Amino acid sequence: MSDVAIQAGLIDRALRRVSTLWRDMAAVVGVGDQADADLSSRLRDCLEGRGGEISARARAAGLAETYRTLDPAGRTEFLRALAAFDSDADAVGKAMEKVGAASDAAERAVATARLRRALEPPRIRLLTAVAAIPDGVKFLVDLRADLLARQDGDKLLQALETDLKGLLASWFDVAFLELRHIDWRSPAVILEKLVEYEAVHRIRTWRDLKNRLDSDRRCYAFFHPRMPEEPLIFVEVALVQGMSDSVQRLLDEKAPVLDPRQADTAVFYSINNCQRGLDGISFGNFLIKRVVGVLSDEMRNIKQFCTLSPIPGYRKWLDAALAAGEIALTEEERKALRALAPLLPPPSEDAPEPDEAAILRSLLARRPPWREEGTQKVLEPLLSRLCARYLLKEEAPRRPGRARDPVAHFHLSNGARIERVNWKADISENGLRQSHGLMVNYLYDPERIEDHHEAYVGEGRRAASTAIRKLAKA
Amino acid sequence: MSDVAIQAGLIDRALRRVSTLWRDMAAVVGVGDQADADLSSRLRDCLEGRGGEISARARAAGLAETYRTLDPAGRTEFLRALAAFDSDADAVGKAMEKVGAASDAAERAVATARLRRALEPPRIRLLTAVAAIPDGVKFLVDLRADLLARQDGDKLLQALETDLKGLLASWFDVAFLELRHIDWRSPAVILEKLVEYEAVHRIRTWRDLKNRLDSDRRCYAFFHPRMPEEPLIFVEVALVQGMSDSVQRLLDEKAPVLDPRQADTAVFYSINNCQRGLDGISFGNFLIKRVVGVLSDEMRNIKQFCTLSPIPGYRKWLDAALAAGEIALTEEERKALRALAPLLPPPSEDAPEPDEAAILRSLLARRPPWREEGTQKVLEPLLSRLCARYLLKEEAPRRPGRARDPVAHFHLSNGARIERVNWKADISENGLRQSHGLMVNYLYDPERIEDHHEAYVGEGRRAASTAIRKLAKA
Amino acid sequence: MSDVAIQAGLIDRALRRVSTLWRDMAAVVGVGDQADADLSSRLRDCLEGRGGEISARARAAGLAETYRTLDPAGRTEFLRALAAFDSDADAVGKAMEKVGAASDAAERAVATARLRRALEPPRIRLLTAVAAIPDGVKFLVDLRADLLARQDGDKLLQALETDLKGLLASWFDVAFLELRHIDWRSPAVILEKLVEYEAVHRIRTWRDLKNRLDSDRRCYAFFHPRMPEEPLIFVEVALVQGMSDSVQRLLDEKAPVLDPRQADTAVFYSINNCQRGLDGISFGNFLIKRVVGVLSDEMRNIKQFCTLSPIPGYRKWLDAALAAGEIALTEEERKALRALAPLLPPPSEDAPEPDEAAILRSLLARRPPWREEGTQKVLEPLLSRLCARYLLKEEAPRRPGRARDPVAHFHLSNGARIERVNWKADISENGLRQSHGLMVNYLYDPERIEDHHEAYVGEGRRAASTAIRKLAKA
Amino acid sequence: MSDVAIQAGLIDRALRRVSTLWRDMAAVVGVGDQADADLSSRLRDCLEGRGGEISARARAAGLAETYRTLDPAGRTEFLRALAAFDSDADAVGKAMEKVGAASDAAERAVATARLRRALEPPRIRLLTAVAAIPDGVKFLVDLRADLLARQDGDKLLQALETDLKGLLASWFDVAFLELRHIDWRSPAVILEKLVEYEAVHRIRTWRDLKNRLDSDRRCYAFFHPRMPEEPLIFVEVALVQGMSDSVQRLLDEKAPVLDPRQADTAVFYSINNCQRGLDGISFGNFLIKRVVGVLSDEMRNIKQFCTLSPIPGYRKWLDAALAAGEIALTEEERKALRALAPLLPPPSEDAPEPDEAAILRSLLARRPPWREEGTQKVLEPLLSRLCARYLLKEEAPRRPGRARDPVAHFHLSNGARIERVNWKADISENGLRQSHGLMVNYLYDPERIEDHHEAYVGEGRRAASTAIRKLAKA
Repeated sequence: MSDVAIQAGLIDRALRRVSTLWRDMAAVVGVGDQADADLSSRLRDCLEGRGGEISARARAAGLAETYRTLDPAGRTEFLRALAAFDSDADAVGKAMEKVGAASDAAERAVATARLRRALEPPRIRLLTAVAAIPDGVKFLVDLRADLLARQDGDKLLQALETDLKGLLASWFDVAFLELRHIDWRSPAVILEKLVEYEAVHRIRTWRDLKNRLDSDRRCYAFFHPRMPEEPLIFVEVALVQGMSDSVQRLLDEKAPVLDPRQADTAVFYSINNCQRGLDGISFGNFLIKRVVGVLSDEMRNIKQFCTLSPIPGYRKWLDAALAAGEIALTEEERKALRALAPLLPPPSEDAPEPDEAAILRSLLARRPPWREEGTQKVLEPLLSRLCARYLLKEEAPRRPGRARDPVAHFHLSNGARIERVNWKADISENGLRQSHGLMVNYLYDPERIEDHHEAYVGEGRRAASTAIRKLAKA
Repeated sequence: MSDVAIQAGLIDRALRRVSTLWRDMAAVVGVGDQADADLSSRLRDCLEGRGGEISARARAAGLAETYRTLDPAGRTEFLRALAAFDSDADAVGKAMEKVGAASDAAERAVATARLRRALEPPRIRLLTAVAAIPDGVKFLVDLRADLLARQDGDKLLQALETDLKGLLASWFDVAFLELRHIDWRSPAVILEKLVEYEAVHRIRTWRDLKNRLDSDRRCYAFFHPRMPEEPLIFVEVALVQGMSDSVQRLLDEKAPVLDPRQADTAVFYSINNCQRGLDGISFGNFLIKRVVGVLSDEMRNIKQFCTLSPIPGYRKWLDAALAAGEIALTEEERKALRALAPLLPPPSEDAPEPDEAAILRSLLARRPPWREEGTQKVLEPLLSRLCARYLLKEEAPRRPGRARDPVAHFHLSNGARIERVNWKADISENGLRQSHGLMVNYLYDPERIEDHHEAYVGEGRRAASTAIRKLAKA
Repeated sequence: MSDVAIQAGLIDRALRRVSTLWRDMAAVVGVGDQADADLSSRLRDCLEGRGGEISARARAAGLAETYRTLDPAGRTEFLRALAAFDSDADAVGKAMEKVGAASDAAERAVATARLRRALEPPRIRLLTAVAAIPDGVKFLVDLRADLLARQDGDKLLQALETDLKGLLASWFDVAFLELRHIDWRSPAVILEKLVEYEAVHRIRTWRDLKNRLDSDRRCYAFFHPRMPEEPLIFVEVALVQGMSDSVQRLLDEKAPVLDPRQADTAVFYSINNCQRGLDGISFGNFLIKRVVGVLSDEMRNIKQFCTLSPIPGYRKWLDAALAAGEIALTEEERKALRALAPLLPPPSEDAPEPDEAAILRSLLARRPPWREEGTQKVLEPLLSRLCARYLLKEEAPRRPGRARDPVAHFHLSNGARIERVNWKADISENGLRQSHGLMVNYLYDPERIEDHHEAYVGEGRRAASTAIRKLAKA
Repeated sequence: MSDVAIQAGLIDRALRRVSTLWRDMAAVVGVGDQADADLSSRLRDCLEGRGGEISARARAAGLAETYRTLDPAGRTEFLRALAAFDSDADAVGKAMEKVGAASDAAERAVATARLRRALEPPRIRLLTAVAAIPDGVKFLVDLRADLLARQDGDKLLQALETDLKGLLASWFDVAFLELRHIDWRSPAVILEKLVEYEAVHRIRTWRDLKNRLDSDRRCYAFFHPRMPEEPLIFVEVALVQGMSDSVQRLLDEKAPVLDPRQADTAVFYSINNCQRGLDGISFGNFLIKRVVGVLSDEMRNIKQFCTLSPIPGYRKWLDAALAAGEIALTEEERKALRALAPLLPPPSEDAPEPDEAAILRSLLARRPPWREEGTQKVLEPLLSRLCARYLLKEEAPRRPGRARDPVAHFHLSNGARIERVNWKADISENGLRQSHGLMVNYLYDPERIEDHHEAYVGEGRRAASTAIRKLAKA
């Protein structure tokens, strides 16, 4: 059975399945039997480009409408049916032959261009046509989110997802995004999206939100002209004096408002991607760079740009490293830990005397671990030192040169440097769970962003302050 | 010598040439010698993606700046150097093998996706990076105009042009365009573009322009968000009573202004593409459809939408057909033409008696041909009949089913129907030269646009009024 | 002691008091002693117009700033000091003589104009100068609110308040207001004002607010260009099928959203003045008329415009009228009421048998009064009938021709007619307290607004539906 | 005959005249006889406030419409009829008595407020009502222009004009104006107004206009929110290096465009009031101050703000002063002038030998006077010296302390100082006629504007550069 036949079979099965679902649904909502034939032929007409371009757009609108009404199983079938409209294997085969036979660069260029065209799958046409309907672009972004959730192991869906990602990457190139300042004057329809999408430090109430948009705060987001009410990514900034060392203090609604002309530092304390369907299409780095530029222009009193960032992988790495015995403690640390042993519940009679690593693990198992002043005195320097090492030295598994911590990787590849580790900086449940309450400041020095970026991306060298380097070495 | 080597050679040669030019220029403007190495390495760095994405954008900006300063020869070399950064032949070869070896649809889907990626030429990255700089999108549109003017026969430049067209087609999809109403309240910077780009009926003065934007006129244009001061295409509309039959009357600055609420007909009398660099990326059909929609919603008194269109190919076709003896005249026509013979200069003594076709040709060689009332009485029905036939029956060479007249093809494929042929409708020099002064109304019936569009695009059937059909048959 | 001397004395005393306060405050905030002389002289300079106009504005800004920092007593003194800058009694005296001596209309016109100028108090100059500072207009609106709260019996403050009202009335003429559609896309800073100012049916949460701005709701407000974030008055509208008869149903957040194209009726269910400082400067009537116009243009399916209005004076009037024995009951009503007597607590042994009015009063004293189905059957027609009479016949004390109910007066003078009385239309605590839960629909018939308005304003005739007329007569 | 009777008589006569005109017109346009009664009663109803406020506005709209259709004589009658609706003489008389009888400041305040109210003429109500119709504010501005053109000697029209001026002054207070930057991106409808209103240095073509809005030029205007397409006043600014000394060079379309970041000086070279109907309501001083503020904020490279101004009264003053023998020449000047005598036509035989003043007058009678190099060498220092004296010392007749030159007065009262006199700075016909081609730079030093303003407005002291002081003394 040829490829073409297989493909046709797949489409028909998929369409039949969709049709069945559709007929069932149609019966329920009273649209009746004619709907069945209708959908199959609409999908086919649309994809095969029958009629001209205007008709194609009209049909695409109908299909999108249909998709919205399908249940999850129906959607999967719909997507599989759509994915089956791949490029024509025969045409591709012939085009490949021509490329193989090309005798010089010019001939090859022509043959290659033809092969590219032959490879364009018809399903791309439907996706493009959908973009033109109202909310069509948002529809496609959500469609990709659906695909990402479904594609697991399904090569057809993966291929469709790849096509869609390509399309979205082209449309959502940073060239086409607009940076908007969001404040309490912004439309409520956008502000409620911030509440929905803020995942780093949840927004609890409209009062909390208003506090984050006050005169000593800034919020910037990228938008796409075709999704004017949907932020793609946003960053929250605090204008303060000196680098912040506690996110709880930053978010305290009762804290007095600083006159922004008195601030000398802009702290990026939360950055959030909003659209699951744009995963892997990055604009976070551009956002930070643009915001640094905007703030520099606007507020000459701001001398320093930094983040107050979570360290999501620290605790997990530390637990594993301790368990594996990979953490070397200094003599001083050992001594201090031993002195804390009495704080722990006495080991069962026959258990061996716990060593210092075991004591440390026991202390860290408590929440918070710094319950006693004495403990805190021991843990603060110890956890800070290990954290500096984690950020500066640890590499992602199988990704040599890449920082193990994903947030560290993000900022380092944006050209920031690791500046300072902060103790008790996020004492929320989440902060304790991720990193025993530690947070880190990454510093964005406008003059050095490019250099740091190239050093890290090109050679895996991580920029860090002298203090961090010393700490990591200790 | 392998493909890769060839390619590398090409690039080096091209870069050297650019470099030379650059060094010369640099010497003139006093930038000095270091510029030379600079450009080569910048182009290479940019295309090879050294450093991260942010650096790539910065380098792209520099290259665009350089390009702007090059002379035509320098630009050609620059473009050839850029075009040489094609996809990697080895990688493509391997990917093609995998496609050939795929054993089922799923495997094939994966292999195909990889082949597509392998085929993506690095030069595309540079083009994309340029889009992000201010005016970058306009730069690329103009770059394509440069390429179209240069590519003749040069396969490499053609390949680059094809890439760029694909990119622009994706970005300038009608989904991303915004329709704007242009009137005397619009920015002068946009109005002067109308003056510049209007090619159908030239705008002579600001007064002429103001008259075309008066309260009984409408003008709509598509814009792209990244080129907010550059119309892509615009249409001029007159709100009148009954279908217009003379463009001179429409453009008469002294004609009284009609209260637009008294109008029953919207006449599209001029439609102009503005960006040479977007040739082949069509949005004219969407523009007309959108404008019909907007006007219907806004002005309930408008009952009829039509054009007053030139017939650019009529005279040329008629001359050729007469010369080839392909025009059959009716007995009545023959008689009437013979009666006009005395008006013509007497043939030289030994010349044969002119036949009716010759008389007709002689009459039509005069400008205007209708000098005498008697002539007009003969020519009006005759030229109208032949024009109806031309529009309704004549096919483009080697394009069966396609109307020979390009404007007719445009409107028919948009879903219009041929409605009426108008005598002495454009008596300008240009109108006489193109079509002996005849113009045609195409009618856009919102209810039937889709049907007509499909009938023409799908089956080559041309919609026409009964009157036109009768006239063509006569 | 001459007027001028008195006036100067007043000013000095007032300034001294302000100065003292100011010095105390200045000491606290560390501005020091020079502040004292400073304020006195600033007020004087500003009011006496020393220096030119530009200086005056600068000084006004300083004074406004000072005012904001004063405590209530300080503000009162400040206002009294300001008020003391009245017109010059001598100049007014002389100008009056000239008017008295004028011998013909022309001479009189000139003398009158001069008198008008002589009467212009210098304090007006300060108020005008303040308008130019940022937020100056809002400052003056709030200043008038301060004055209204303070002026009680103080002739000087009253005079100042009158000046300020005149100024504000000129600036806030409806000619200068802009109507804005408010929805969930509006800035949060404006939406929070709705929450703050809605006094008819309190907005409890952002969810409640969002529900009121949903697609089947409309909200319109008047704004002044110099107070772009402060609504002056706003109206909330529901798009429904048929006239609404229950505000609880209207505000139910769980009620399904109606497709607004299915609606045939627009119900104005809440109208709120926002600025206490604009009391007595009315634009409510213009707001309703404008909104009727906007909705008619925009939604051709809306055939009927009405309100669902509270009847704030009904219960109070009814209680008094019952107590005074002014309510005549029909025989049928009496009988029905008597049958309900057993529901009431048995009267004390020696009390007289309660008559029907007493039974009615006892029933109405319960909250809600309709506890039993039988009661409801009796009360609904009875309370509706009396309500119709109240709305249609009762006059405001000492205002013959004017409806007693203030909301009825507002809508009647805007040209509405009393359309329908609704039982159990507002069963909130507030609705029961005001009107035993009854509400009324006023109908705005665009064709008849002018007629009704003139009939009511000119002759005291109240427009009402036939049903209401019948009911009132019953 | 009482005042009231006179007034009623006036009104009736005026209305009758208007009615007649109206009837004639109505007959012509076929509205018929009922129009007559109609206008009279509409004017009366509107002014007497019959019906409510909404009706008043509707009637005002009708009257404005009528006014627009009247011929000049009809308009005069209309205005006189309107003006006759003055305040009620009896009511004013009674209110004046109360003021006279007031025994203390509080009583007087109340009585005064009542008198003010009694003095408000009913015609003001009509004017206010008109403001609410579309274009109503522009209508009133133009109405005042009509009144200013007509009022000559007519006390009634003067009184009406005074009322209207008061109303407009309140509405057009600088507090309510918006400053807009105008450039080539501005709507054509506004740009064509610049062309229309520029009176200092006429704009000849759209190209000339575009040149004045280029990147090294700025143009700012005040607008009123209710007249968004009508500039009230605008200023044209050139960004240059060093103070300009020639307006012809400034306006040269072929001059190269300066990168505005290279400029160090902003030259205000033309300032124009646009609305005759706002004469006497000044905002020019605020405009310059605001523009200085905007430019300082925006362009840190601009260090100096000055004008290049005409000296409209110089030549006229000089001619008169020379004729009156009031110009004292230095010995050096005399000698130089005598040396130029041979250039002049020989005096008739019997004429006395011309003295130096006569020689000067003869030279200045030529256009241009500097025809020969030698002449120029004599005239440049001489005319510059006298000009410095004229600007610095000469006072307006009967206005001690006020500069004689109106433009000098304008800038001095705005806080500028006289900086430099420029020879051959405006060699146009107009420049020669006004000031023998001289122009002057006034310097606006942001730090000193207030001081200069107060010194001039308060004490008549004129700020000037040392150079100007020296020159004037020479």
